[in-house]
Amino acid sequence: MSVATVLQYLDQQQSRHLAELMEFLRFPTISTESSHREDLQQAAHWLCARLKQAGLQAAVSPTDGHPVVIGRSEPKADRPTVLVYGHYDVQPVDPLPLWRRPPFEPAIEAGYLYARGASDDKGQFFLHVIAAEGWLKAAGELPVNLVLLCEGEEEIGSPHLPEWIAAHREELAAQVAVVSDTPMLGPDLPAICYGLRGLLTATLTVWGPKHDLHSGVFGGAVANPAHVLAEILASFHDSSGRVAVEGFYDQVLLPTPEERSRIAHLPYAEERFLAEAGVKEGFGEPGYSSLERAWVRPTLEVNGIASGFQGEGYKTVIPARAEAKLSCRLVPEQTPEAVFSALERHVARFARPGISVQLARGEGAPPSLLPVDHPVVSAAQRAVQAVWGQAANLIRMGGSIPIVDTFTRVLGVPTLLLGFGLPDDQFHAPNERFALDNLWRGAKTAAALLAELGQAGVEANPG
Amino acid sequence: MSVATVLQYLDQQQSRHLAELMEFLRFPTISTESSHREDLQQAAHWLCARLKQAGLQAAVSPTDGHPVVIGRSEPKADRPTVLVYGHYDVQPVDPLPLWRRPPFEPAIEAGYLYARGASDDKGQFFLHVIAAEGWLKAAGELPVNLVLLCEGEEEIGSPHLPEWIAAHREELAAQVAVVSDTPMLGPDLPAICYGLRGLLTATLTVWGPKHDLHSGVFGGAVANPAHVLAEILASFHDSSGRVAVEGFYDQVLLPTPEERSRIAHLPYAEERFLAEAGVKEGFGEPGYSSLERAWVRPTLEVNGIASGFQGEGYKTVIPARAEAKLSCRLVPEQTPEAVFSALERHVARFARPGISVQLARGEGAPPSLLPVDHPVVSAAQRAVQAVWGQAANLIRMGGSIPIVDTFTRVLGVPTLLLGFGLPDDQFHAPNERFALDNLWRGAKTAAALLAELGQAGVEANPG
Repeated sequence: MSVATVLQYLDQQQSRHLAELMEFLRFPTISTESSHREDLQQAAHWLCARLKQAGLQAAVSPTDGHPVVIGRSEPKADRPTVLVYGHYDVQPVDPLPLWRRPPFEPAIEAGYLYARGASDDKGQFFLHVIAAEGWLKAAGELPVNLVLLCEGEEEIGSPHLPEWIAAHREELAAQVAVVSDTPMLGPDLPAICYGLRGLLTATLTVWGPKHDLHSGVFGGAVANPAHVLAEILASFHDSSGRVAVEGFYDQVLLPTPEERSRIAHLPYAEERFLAEAGVKEGFGEPGYSSLERAWVRPTLEVNGIASGFQGEGYKTVIPARAEAKLSCRLVPEQTPEAVFSALERHVARFARPGISVQLARGEGAPPSLLPVDHPVVSAAQRAVQAVWGQAANLIRMGGSIPIVDTFTRVLGVPTLLLGFGLPDDQFHAPNERFALDNLWRGAKTAAALLAELGQAGVEANPG
Repeated sequence: MSVATVLQYLDQQQSRHLAELMEFLRFPTISTESSHREDLQQAAHWLCARLKQAGLQAAVSPTDGHPVVIGRSEPKADRPTVLVYGHYDVQPVDPLPLWRRPPFEPAIEAGYLYARGASDDKGQFFLHVIAAEGWLKAAGELPVNLVLLCEGEEEIGSPHLPEWIAAHREELAAQVAVVSDTPMLGPDLPAICYGLRGLLTATLTVWGPKHDLHSGVFGGAVANPAHVLAEILASFHDSSGRVAVEGFYDQVLLPTPEERSRIAHLPYAEERFLAEAGVKEGFGEPGYSSLERAWVRPTLEVNGIASGFQGEGYKTVIPARAEAKLSCRLVPEQTPEAVFSALERHVARFARPGISVQLARGEGAPPSLLPVDHPVVSAAQRAVQAVWGQAANLIRMGGSIPIVDTFTRVLGVPTLLLGFGLPDDQFHAPNERFALDNLWRGAKTAAALLAELGQAGVEANPG
């Protein structure tokens, strides 16, 4: 078995592979729109057939929502199992007038493949399919046991996947999960993401009078819940932007000097970050760079506020209620439970006669972190070096990927996030695209990664 | 001319007058619903005919919205002119299921007349119509020159009335305006309202990033406009509830010890005020009672807040924008201009890199105050004493009545607010009603008031 043979095969098959991906992209698999239910079914069956064509066993597996497509190689006892996850559903296409061509009529322009789903995530899942095909057709077998899992509900929050995974725990037993659904640091700057922040959401509600009151008749003489909500929200941070909730930072694992130095030396990362945010200047906790604030420090953000009259013009009421949607991004070793308790204690002291305050807990997901010296990271580094001629940049991400938490909790596997998208691929936006160069190099990296993981002898439950 | 004869006439005509008022209440004159346009026209013509029947000259006068009905007595040179204002339009009836009987099928029960508009304001305008009829039919003439003005757009903010009044300034020339559209202090507690707070509305907008950002990817590293809005709103008051905006109280005329003592001795007023607000305890500026806070002290209230995601569940965004609707109630001698400037200076200091702050001015109306020793107040006191056997309670109101401002500015007349509704008449709510006793005593008070104003020799522009 030689990686070189596989990479050569992939080079030779580009035009067919591209035509196939374009076929995959033609299914309008918008998971949030029930009118597309049948399109998702058809895409799932197309993908299942495509996995079989690659030489894998494959099936479409129903859920209470859109189906899961599962493919696997003939299991062999002497090699580790690698689970690759992706999704075939896509984001809605609104606003349609901003697309330069129809979102489900894929087209090539100046080295990019344009279509909804090109990058997120059909293209990035498909490169693993052709990598597997490369091994099976050119080398006759895979260097690992491979399980390919592709769901149809990622863009609506994977409502049925955790249950499906729990029910198929044994079939999915693996030593490592690989996900290509994240961007690189920039063009020609491959990246391995080794850390994600966790999430805690909560709704803060302040109640005052039983119903809205006339602010002329009663204004100045009755407690206004919108004032109290503002007071609470303003108390969440000090003037520098640091969270001022007692106990909030108690469990936080500080980044090591090595990690801080690594982040500081990432090429163009700080500039790109601010450019992507569309702001000239960052703002946040003193003593940390923008990337550190977003990757290694926890947050408490107000995501929405609603109270009283919000229409055009004026309606002079004292609102009966004021509500804020909150979310915290958590870092190791914070837990959603401890942070929620700290918030609950903080907001409780704002209750007063005529005003009650409630904090309701929403979702929670713990942060995740793969040590950078983990054998899976080293294997990925070697694969990247072989294809890109350089080491991958080691990055963390500020967001949360709930499926990674499921893999950790339910399957007990570490997850490697190795994406090939570019920051300007227009994920979730009009004119989504995927650079063809990244598609081909991504497929080769995926093929090389399988060889490295086969040799690395990765163990189960290393995290 | 004898008042006694007129009051006797009113006693004798009660059953006819009640039947007529019920006829007036059957028109579903909901001004905000365009489907009722024709009902408003019909009600206006019915009222016009009724004014003629009382012995007045009358006309339906078109506006760009619902028409105005204007009635007047034959002018005589030796007597002052009194302008009585009311409105024949009513509030919507939602929620309809809460009405115990159809809102436009008037019915009597336990001494109350139930119907939408019974108290607000058809019943309270109608009592002036029958008072005028009483003088004309029983005494042969009126003790004053009387102008009755009834509009059809009060419940939608009188959009066309100021212009109509300006265009008819000469016809409306008068020495005093009388409005019966306010409640008494309680059953058997007549009240004269001598002061209204003014109004300033404004919209505060805080802008951050160009569009909503993912709070996972960027949270903690980019200024969040919802945080800044909360900070600004929280800065508006100190912890005691006093407005903390520099210069806000500069122009405020403090109540005299006499006025404070009078307010403190109003029967049951503080208890009723809190009961109507539906709160157990008031909250506001230290050193003032609830009534003082609502009547003689200015306010800065948040009437609404909108930012980011407000739906069910969670959407973890850093909102691009956060907005609050504000209103100030003003007291003599504050001006909307000066208070707006103070607010503008206050909010400007919250702008910072990445955050811009704007305050847009909305409506403005100056406060109004009739000195309690004004001859118009004395005349009203004598009329109330004659009919109710007691002096009227002298009250102020926390709200603003824009038409009073128009009368002051455009016509240069002081306005006497002498209402006969009860606090539990369900103004704007299901099961609106008007106590028959208040209808009849109100009509007699109105008749007696005309005699008193005729004798008082009130002068133009006394305020």
